[in-house]
Amino acid sequence: MIIQTDSNITSDQQKKITQHLERIGYSWSTVTTQFRQYIIAVGNRPFDIRRVGQLSGVTDVHRVSDPYKLVSKKWKLDYSDINIGDDLVIGPDTFTMMAGPCSIESEAQIESTVDHLVKNNIPVMRGGVYKPRSSPYSFRGLGMDGLKLFAQYCRERGIKIITEVMMVEQVEEMHDYVDIFQVGARNSQNFNLLDVLGGVDKPVLLKRGMSMTIPELLQSAEYIFSNGNEKIILCERGIRTFENSYRNTMDINAIAILKERSHLPVIADPSHGVGIRKYVDKVAKSAVMAGADGVIMEVHEVPQQAFSDGQQTLDYVQAEQLYKQLRELYQLRESFDRA
Amino acid sequence: MIIQTDSNITSDQQKKITQHLERIGYSWSTVTTQFRQYIIAVGNRPFDIRRVGQLSGVTDVHRVSDPYKLVSKKWKLDYSDINIGDDLVIGPDTFTMMAGPCSIESEAQIESTVDHLVKNNIPVMRGGVYKPRSSPYSFRGLGMDGLKLFAQYCRERGIKIITEVMMVEQVEEMHDYVDIFQVGARNSQNFNLLDVLGGVDKPVLLKRGMSMTIPELLQSAEYIFSNGNEKIILCERGIRTFENSYRNTMDINAIAILKERSHLPVIADPSHGVGIRKYVDKVAKSAVMAGADGVIMEVHEVPQQAFSDGQQTLDYVQAEQLYKQLRELYQLRESFDRA
Amino acid sequence: MIIQTDSNITSDQQKKITQHLERIGYSWSTVTTQFRQYIIAVGNRPFDIRRVGQLSGVTDVHRVSDPYKLVSKKWKLDYSDINIGDDLVIGPDTFTMMAGPCSIESEAQIESTVDHLVKNNIPVMRGGVYKPRSSPYSFRGLGMDGLKLFAQYCRERGIKIITEVMMVEQVEEMHDYVDIFQVGARNSQNFNLLDVLGGVDKPVLLKRGMSMTIPELLQSAEYIFSNGNEKIILCERGIRTFENSYRNTMDINAIAILKERSHLPVIADPSHGVGIRKYVDKVAKSAVMAGADGVIMEVHEVPQQAFSDGQQTLDYVQAEQLYKQLRELYQLRESFDRA
Amino acid sequence: MIIQTDSNITSDQQKKITQHLERIGYSWSTVTTQFRQYIIAVGNRPFDIRRVGQLSGVTDVHRVSDPYKLVSKKWKLDYSDINIGDDLVIGPDTFTMMAGPCSIESEAQIESTVDHLVKNNIPVMRGGVYKPRSSPYSFRGLGMDGLKLFAQYCRERGIKIITEVMMVEQVEEMHDYVDIFQVGARNSQNFNLLDVLGGVDKPVLLKRGMSMTIPELLQSAEYIFSNGNEKIILCERGIRTFENSYRNTMDINAIAILKERSHLPVIADPSHGVGIRKYVDKVAKSAVMAGADGVIMEVHEVPQQAFSDGQQTLDYVQAEQLYKQLRELYQLRESFDRA
Repeated sequence: MIIQTDSNITSDQQKKITQHLERIGYSWSTVTTQFRQYIIAVGNRPFDIRRVGQLSGVTDVHRVSDPYKLVSKKWKLDYSDINIGDDLVIGPDTFTMMAGPCSIESEAQIESTVDHLVKNNIPVMRGGVYKPRSSPYSFRGLGMDGLKLFAQYCRERGIKIITEVMMVEQVEEMHDYVDIFQVGARNSQNFNLLDVLGGVDKPVLLKRGMSMTIPELLQSAEYIFSNGNEKIILCERGIRTFENSYRNTMDINAIAILKERSHLPVIADPSHGVGIRKYVDKVAKSAVMAGADGVIMEVHEVPQQAFSDGQQTLDYVQAEQLYKQLRELYQLRESFDRA
Repeated sequence: MIIQTDSNITSDQQKKITQHLERIGYSWSTVTTQFRQYIIAVGNRPFDIRRVGQLSGVTDVHRVSDPYKLVSKKWKLDYSDINIGDDLVIGPDTFTMMAGPCSIESEAQIESTVDHLVKNNIPVMRGGVYKPRSSPYSFRGLGMDGLKLFAQYCRERGIKIITEVMMVEQVEEMHDYVDIFQVGARNSQNFNLLDVLGGVDKPVLLKRGMSMTIPELLQSAEYIFSNGNEKIILCERGIRTFENSYRNTMDINAIAILKERSHLPVIADPSHGVGIRKYVDKVAKSAVMAGADGVIMEVHEVPQQAFSDGQQTLDYVQAEQLYKQLRELYQLRESFDRA
Repeated sequence: MIIQTDSNITSDQQKKITQHLERIGYSWSTVTTQFRQYIIAVGNRPFDIRRVGQLSGVTDVHRVSDPYKLVSKKWKLDYSDINIGDDLVIGPDTFTMMAGPCSIESEAQIESTVDHLVKNNIPVMRGGVYKPRSSPYSFRGLGMDGLKLFAQYCRERGIKIITEVMMVEQVEEMHDYVDIFQVGARNSQNFNLLDVLGGVDKPVLLKRGMSMTIPELLQSAEYIFSNGNEKIILCERGIRTFENSYRNTMDINAIAILKERSHLPVIADPSHGVGIRKYVDKVAKSAVMAGADGVIMEVHEVPQQAFSDGQQTLDYVQAEQLYKQLRELYQLRESFDRA
Repeated sequence: MIIQTDSNITSDQQKKITQHLERIGYSWSTVTTQFRQYIIAVGNRPFDIRRVGQLSGVTDVHRVSDPYKLVSKKWKLDYSDINIGDDLVIGPDTFTMMAGPCSIESEAQIESTVDHLVKNNIPVMRGGVYKPRSSPYSFRGLGMDGLKLFAQYCRERGIKIITEVMMVEQVEEMHDYVDIFQVGARNSQNFNLLDVLGGVDKPVLLKRGMSMTIPELLQSAEYIFSNGNEKIILCERGIRTFENSYRNTMDINAIAILKERSHLPVIADPSHGVGIRKYVDKVAKSAVMAGADGVIMEVHEVPQQAFSDGQQTLDYVQAEQLYKQLRELYQLRESFDRA
C-alpha cells in the first residue's frame, strides 16, 4: 500500500497512521523525496482502504501488491517527467537522444564529440570514466581527471553529461560534474549503490542487468525512489540468452511492458542491445516503435580506434543520419498515439 | 562451395565437375530447384576457385564456408521474391500482412475473418487446422474438414491460405488447399518434414524454434532449398529466455541479422513474439523497423472466445488500426532506405 | 481427474460415468493401455470426488490438476517398472546402463561394440540409424540396412537395442528390430510421432527437448501414455543456456524433480549433457546421485574416427572404468536410500 | 604471459624484464601476492618464450592466452590449498562443509547453530549480516552488531566464519570478525569490491553470478588475485535459465570445468543451486561427484521461521544425515581418483 501524506503532516498525525498500519498487521516505512512524502506499508492481510484514506494527514492511498510500489503505474497514472536541468526533460512528451564514446579517452576526443553533438542538437553526451571491465588487464577509464575535462567541455557548450558510477565512494566526488548518474548492468543489483543514489539530487539512469527480470529491474528502481530520489530513468540494453550471433538480445518487449507497469521513462541502448555496428540503426528504430522515450548510443569519430566497444560504435556520418531518422520516426509514433 | 550449372548441362560435363571436386577432396550433392541447378560441395581444403569456374557447364561458383549455403546471401546478393500466386509476391519491395485466428473453429468464423481481411485488403489468411498442443487433452484442430472449408471461402474471395503442416503424411492431402505451408516452431528441426517440403511446388514459411540459433534456422531452410524448393519464407516468432513477464522474447536483432545473412524474406510474428494482446501493436511496429518483409498476426472476432491463443489475439478494431499504421510505417522505412 | 475403471466394465457403466462427468462440466477421454483402463476428465469446477468414486465400474479416482495426469506421481505412488524383455527391467530397483556409438557405421563397428558390451555386462546398445542433423549435408545414418545389421548382432548376443525414430512412417518398419524406441530432443514435441508411439507395444525413451520445461516434458510423455503405451522412460540430456563453455547444460535438478513428479523412470545422458569427453565421467556420476535410474552414453572404439559426436564419446578403456564406478556408486546410493 | 620473478629481484632486473616486454609489444603489470611476485604481460604478437625465460630475475614463464591468467591451471598445475587458519585447509585433499542460516537473526539462533555445527564437526558457519535483497522493503540483515555476536560465539567454539561483504566500505569494519569474505552472485562483477578484496589477507569465496559465463567468473577471480590475494575459493550456485520449476539451474558441468581450467578450489552451493529443500540433498551429492571441494548449505533450526530463504533451508535432522552421506561419498570419490 502507498499512502501519500500531507506535506504539513504533524508527527502526531503520522503516528496515528502508522499505529493503524501496525494494528492491521502491516510493516511500514516513510519515504521523503524531492517532491512528496509517502508511507509504504507491506503486508498481506485484507484491509479496508477507506479507513486508511480517512485518517488525518492522508492525501491519497493506493493498493499496490506488486513487489515494487512507488515506481508502479498502478498509483501514479501519469508518466513522470524527469527534469535534467535547463529545460531538458525526459518523459512522455519528448524523445531524448544521448550519444558519445564508450570511454572518455582524451581532450581531443571530448572536443570532437561535443562539436558533433552540438551540430546535431543532441543534448546529452555519454562517456565512461570508470569502466567495468571483465578483465583486470583492460583499460579501466581515466577516472576523475577524465570526468573534469569531460565536464569542462560540456558545460561550455550546454551539453549534459551522463556517466557511469561504479561505487558508493565515487558518488560524492563525481556529483558536481555529472548531470545523470548511470548505473551499469553489472551494478543493477548493487543495492548499497542504489541506496546512496536515492539520496542525491540528480537523475539516475538505471540499466537492466544482463539476466534481470522486469520485476527485478523495477525493484532496483524502487531502492532509489524509496531512498528519496524520484528522478529515475530505466534503460533496456539487452539480455543474455542462448543466441550468440550478436552480443545481447535487445528485449523490445520489455520496453513496451515497462511503459505499462511503471510511470518512469524508458531509454533504449541499441549499441549494447545488439552489439554490432551495422545493426544498431535498425535496433534503435525498433526501440522507438516499442515506445522508448529516448536512446543512448555509442558514437566515436573513428570507432575502429576506440579504447572499448568499437565494434558496436557508430561513426559521425552513420550517427547523423540515424538522429534524423529517429526524430522523424518519433513524429510518426506521436501521430499514431494521437490516432 | 556453391556451383551454379548450365540448365543444358550434359551428364558428361556434370561428371567432369564432380570428378574435379572429388579430386580436391570435396563431397558434393546436386540440387535442382524450380528455378536452377546447383552442385553443393563441402570440404575444408583450400582450392583454386578459378579452376572450378573454368570447367565446362559451370555458370557461376561461390565460396560459402557457412554451415548453410544456398540460403546464404554470400552468393545470391539480391533478395529473393517469393511468388505466392496471382501477383502476390513476398520480398524486398513489398510488405505483406497475414492475419487470422490461431485455430480454424467454424464456418461462421472463417466467413467473418475473410470479410475482415477483404475489407482491409489483407491478402493472406492464417488459421490452424492441425494444432501442436503441449497437452494431449487440448483442442487439436478441425483437420482436413476444416481446411476444406477454409479453402472454399478464401478461394472465392481471392485470399491466400497459410496453415501449419505437422507431419509428412499431411503434406499430400493438404497440398491442394494450401498456398503457403507453415512449419511451426516445434517442427523447425523435423528434418524429414523439411525434406518433403523441399519437394513441393508451394512456398514454405519456416518458423524459428524456441531455442534455435540463427545459423540453425538457416540450416533448416537449407534442407528445404537443397531438396528443390527455393520458395522459403523465414519467420521470427520469439525465443525462450529467462524472462517470464511475457510468453516469448521477440528477437528483433534476429530479423536484422537474417536479412543480412540470407536472401530469403523474413516475416515477423508479433503475436507469439510477445504473447500478450496489448503489446502486439508495439512489437509489430518494432519488427517493421527491424526490417521485416511482413507480419503474421492472430486476429479473431471475439478473442476471448477463441479456442486457443486468445490472450495474444487482436480483435478486428485493434487489427484495423494496426494494419493502417504498419503500412504507413513501411512507407517511412522505404523512404529511409532510399536516403 | 483420473478414473481407473474395472477391466470388465460394461458400456452401460461407462456411459453413466461419462454422463456424470459431463453433468459436472468435465470433458473426458478414455485411455486403454497394455495394463489398464482409464478415463481422463478435464475441467475446473469443484466436484465431489466421493460421488465419482461410488459410480459403478470405477476402481479408483484421483484429483490431478497438473497439466499432465497419467504420468504424474500424484495418483500412482509407486514407481513404474518398465519391462524391456528377457528379465531386463528399468525402474526403481535397478540401475541400467546403455552404451554405444552415436551412429551405426559398419558391421565391424557393431561387432566390436557388442563384444565390448557383453564383456562389461551392459544390457542395451544405443546407435542411430536415422540421424537428425542440423545440416542437410551431414551424414544422416545408414537407415534400415544399418538397423537390420544392428539387430542381427545384438539378438545373437542377448543385447537389447535402443535407436532413434524420427518420423511416423518409420515406426512400423523399425518395429521388429527395436527394443526401445528413442525420441530425440528435436522431436520431443512432435506430437504426431508421440501419438503413434502410444500405439506400439515397445518401450519409448523420450528425450527432453533443448528448451523444454519439466512440465512440457511430462506432457509429451502424457501423449504416449494416453494413446495406450505405459512403457515410457524419461531422459534428461541437457538444456540450452547462455553458457557456451560446453555443449548443453546438464540439468541435474531436473532428474531429482522428475523423480518426484512422475512415476516413470529417468535416464541421464551425460554425453549430450556436457558434450565434452573428459567431463562425461563426472557428469555421469553426478546424475547417479541425483537419482537417475540409469545412463545412456556414447562409446566408440576410436572416438576420433566416429562419424558424429566423436568429441563427446568415450573409448572402451574410459567406458569400462566408468561402468564399474557407476555400479559402485549406485550401491552406495541404495544404501543411503535405506538409511 | 605469466612471469614469476625471484623474490629478491632487484629493481634493475625488473626494469630489464619490463623493457624487454615493451620491446616485443606487450603491456605489463606487476603483481605481488602473499606468496609470490609475478609480472603479467598482455599482447598478441608471437614471441620467443626462451628469451624471456633467460632474463635475469625470471624464475619461470608461461604462455597463457586465456582472458584469465593467474587463476589458470595452465601455469600452476597443482591445485591450490587455501589456508583458512587453525589447520583448516580448503583444497584438493579435503572436503569442506560450511553450513548455517541464510541470515543471522538472533543470539539464540547463533548459539543453536554453533552447537549443531560443533556436534557434527562442521568447521565453518555461514550467515549473512548484510543481505542483498531484490526489494528495499525486505529484511536486510543485522549488520555489524549481528556480525560481532556471530564472531563471539564462533570464536569460542573454534568455528570459522563466512559471511557476505557487499561494499568496499564494509571490508575494513568486517575484517576482524570474518574468516572468509563471501562475494555474492549479484556482486560477482563489482570490480571495485574485488579490487579491495585483493588487498586483504583473508580468503575470499567468490560466487558465480546468475548469468556469468565460466570465463567471466575466472576473470573476476583474476581481479582478486592480481590485486595480491591468492586465497580465492570459487563457488557454483546455479545459473538463470528458462526453466522455472526450481529457483536456479545447478550447473554441475561448471564444477567439472572449473576444476580443469583453474587451480582454485570449487565449492558448491546446492541450497541456491536448486532452491527447494527436498532436492538439496540430491544436488549436494551430485556436486560431490562433479568434483566439488566442499559445499556451503543453508541450515536452520526451524526453516519455516527463517527470515529469508526458508524454502531452501534444511533442518538439523536433514542436515545431519546429509553431512554423513557427503563424507561417505567423498571417500568413494577419493578411492575412484586413486583408481
